[in-house]
Amino acid sequence: MPVNLTAPDPASLLPVKGVELGHAEAHVRKPNRKDLLVMRLSPGSRVAGVFTQNRFCAAPVVVCKQHLAKSSGIRALLVNTGNANAGTGEDGLLRARRSCEALAGLLGIADDQVLPFSTGVIMEPLPVERVVAGLPACVENLGEDNWANAAEAIMTTDIVAKACSKQIRIGGNMVTVTGIAKGSGMIHPNMATMLGYIATDAAVAQPVLEAMIRHVVNRSFNCITVDGDTSTNDSLILIASGQAGNAEIAAQDADYVALRDAVTEVAATLAQAIVRDGEGATKFMTIEVEGGKDEAECRKVGYAIAHSPLVKTAFFASDPNLGRILAAVGNAGIADLDVSQVQLFLDDMLVAQNGGRAASYREADGQRVMQQPEITVRVVLGRGDASAAIWTCDFSYDYVKINADYRT
Amino acid sequence: MPVNLTAPDPASLLPVKGVELGHAEAHVRKPNRKDLLVMRLSPGSRVAGVFTQNRFCAAPVVVCKQHLAKSSGIRALLVNTGNANAGTGEDGLLRARRSCEALAGLLGIADDQVLPFSTGVIMEPLPVERVVAGLPACVENLGEDNWANAAEAIMTTDIVAKACSKQIRIGGNMVTVTGIAKGSGMIHPNMATMLGYIATDAAVAQPVLEAMIRHVVNRSFNCITVDGDTSTNDSLILIASGQAGNAEIAAQDADYVALRDAVTEVAATLAQAIVRDGEGATKFMTIEVEGGKDEAECRKVGYAIAHSPLVKTAFFASDPNLGRILAAVGNAGIADLDVSQVQLFLDDMLVAQNGGRAASYREADGQRVMQQPEITVRVVLGRGDASAAIWTCDFSYDYVKINADYRT
Repeated sequence: MPVNLTAPDPASLLPVKGVELGHAEAHVRKPNRKDLLVMRLSPGSRVAGVFTQNRFCAAPVVVCKQHLAKSSGIRALLVNTGNANAGTGEDGLLRARRSCEALAGLLGIADDQVLPFSTGVIMEPLPVERVVAGLPACVENLGEDNWANAAEAIMTTDIVAKACSKQIRIGGNMVTVTGIAKGSGMIHPNMATMLGYIATDAAVAQPVLEAMIRHVVNRSFNCITVDGDTSTNDSLILIASGQAGNAEIAAQDADYVALRDAVTEVAATLAQAIVRDGEGATKFMTIEVEGGKDEAECRKVGYAIAHSPLVKTAFFASDPNLGRILAAVGNAGIADLDVSQVQLFLDDMLVAQNGGRAASYREADGQRVMQQPEITVRVVLGRGDASAAIWTCDFSYDYVKINADYRT
Repeated sequence: MPVNLTAPDPASLLPVKGVELGHAEAHVRKPNRKDLLVMRLSPGSRVAGVFTQNRFCAAPVVVCKQHLAKSSGIRALLVNTGNANAGTGEDGLLRARRSCEALAGLLGIADDQVLPFSTGVIMEPLPVERVVAGLPACVENLGEDNWANAAEAIMTTDIVAKACSKQIRIGGNMVTVTGIAKGSGMIHPNMATMLGYIATDAAVAQPVLEAMIRHVVNRSFNCITVDGDTSTNDSLILIASGQAGNAEIAAQDADYVALRDAVTEVAATLAQAIVRDGEGATKFMTIEVEGGKDEAECRKVGYAIAHSPLVKTAFFASDPNLGRILAAVGNAGIADLDVSQVQLFLDDMLVAQNGGRAASYREADGQRVMQQPEITVRVVLGRGDASAAIWTCDFSYDYVKINADYRT
């Protein structure tokens, strides 16, 4: 079950002026579930995206990049679950484009003003006729107050829908940021998560929006890992509809920082929600690495811990098997690491130093911390001033069960 | 259960002249099990070793390297299970050295003529008094025909003991190669496995033996992975007792190649046995990567597949989820990979090409291959002539169970 995570109260999800959402049950793969989402953006909306680094990126990712590069202005997003349209070659591109054409026709916009997204099983043909057949229902219920349904419509193995909102004031105008995301396996660093959509009604210039999404993703979705696998479809989209009435943010000024931090907060909440709802997760771990020479090596150490199946199974068992954490630090690929300088903490408790167990450490104390649903592992490398944090979950029977049964 | 692997017939394990083995039940961690092994080498034996790259390498690894560097000739090896003496700081070094002193005293040799090895739980003090108390029993039953007991004495979570022998003729003399090894979690590339000992009675000059062990390890223990974690204690030792009567092999000549290939065959059999007995393994997979620009990128692709929890759970489920394999190839970090050139085979069956499923592929055929206990995944990258092979196993409920319960 998700770790300290419940579905958002629909009343807490604030409409973003200029962004309407419509959903449908299109039976893409399974009947009787929301599996299709349309987001319609008002004219003049700005859109920025970051996508998977996987070389086998999915057909919709290819089409998204093309449309973002050449479109006169994105006006709609189309998301289906149940089928990832990945590993589908040339035919997959045709099907992704056909779904864009169909939605463009219904909305009276150009084909390349639509961004397509797919998530689900890989290497099976997208049943595009079902997607197309579901679009009229999506368009019919388009509305600004439909974020809760939208969050549900993009779920696959997620147990809990992920969405949150935040409001800030910019120059006297109330600005809203609302986002949704889905996980929950194949989650890995260095790209967006599976799917994340964050919208604000603030007015933001395009180059500033591009800078903002890079900042945001490196402090949210690029800090999480469930199983170290990188999806073929990972996408994060940041939308600024420009309807809030603020003067357009055109430089990295104080208004920029205020909005950037609000978007980062929403993104980090969504990213952590993906980990809390990681496949089979029973624990939420924050891996803080400090005292590194640079942020890159801190992230390497953090991921070495967060990716270790032995560490993850020990957390599942609430077993303070500190040696596995030290072994992971030793495997992080820092050739000149002086292990005698490394300190390891569980929450605030020093558990290892000088290459071994701390004299003050008592196993019963470690056991107590490990039984918590949320645990911070802090590693001090003792060789510099850089730091990084990674969020991850444990590795349980249910992870294996979910992934062994996924297609059946 | 181990995949197509049974305990070796003791009669098939051939003595190596000049190498005696003695074991004991020393109750290092648990009673009533063989957990201590002494190997005594005749004077003039040559010994070469390769060790873990983990920065938190264990105390016995540090001592082994020191003794190999300065000793006038290694005369004994001492192995305990139940405790890894890793993550134990300065105190761990003292305990490792004390165990060497005790054995040296019993055998009448110098302390630095003993190599110590430990495997088991990490970060707990080695109960060196129990090790020392068990040594007389080991010395008492030293014998050249004791390889089967030796293989059992070094097991931890291994289900099946791992040992094999091979004989070849060199210049009219029969030469024997016999080896033992243990796994079976924390198995990862770029180092020896947990523990492996291979002995031959051939006469081999020291620099030639050093060259041989590098060749051997890169074609055996450095080609396997169970869970991607690197132990703090991995060690492979190659012993040449020089008792076979052959003229000393002092150059990389035909005799060298004959012996090297025999040792490689023994080492590859042992390495594959570790994977077959990988924690929770139900399938044995060979990942062949061909058509790469160099061997390094072929290994990267092979390990990206072999380390993917999603691929490993799909194999556990006998699910031909080819998309997960393609996604792993796409994640291997080859930035300029042209996925339209990649071909994927299950055994001899082409299943994917041109970025998608092969037209000839039928899911029922994939299903049939996936149900086999041994499966070859072949990836053709289509960008060069290099190749590499990786051996791995699947990821099951039992892997989680074994690693969640290990210390309890």
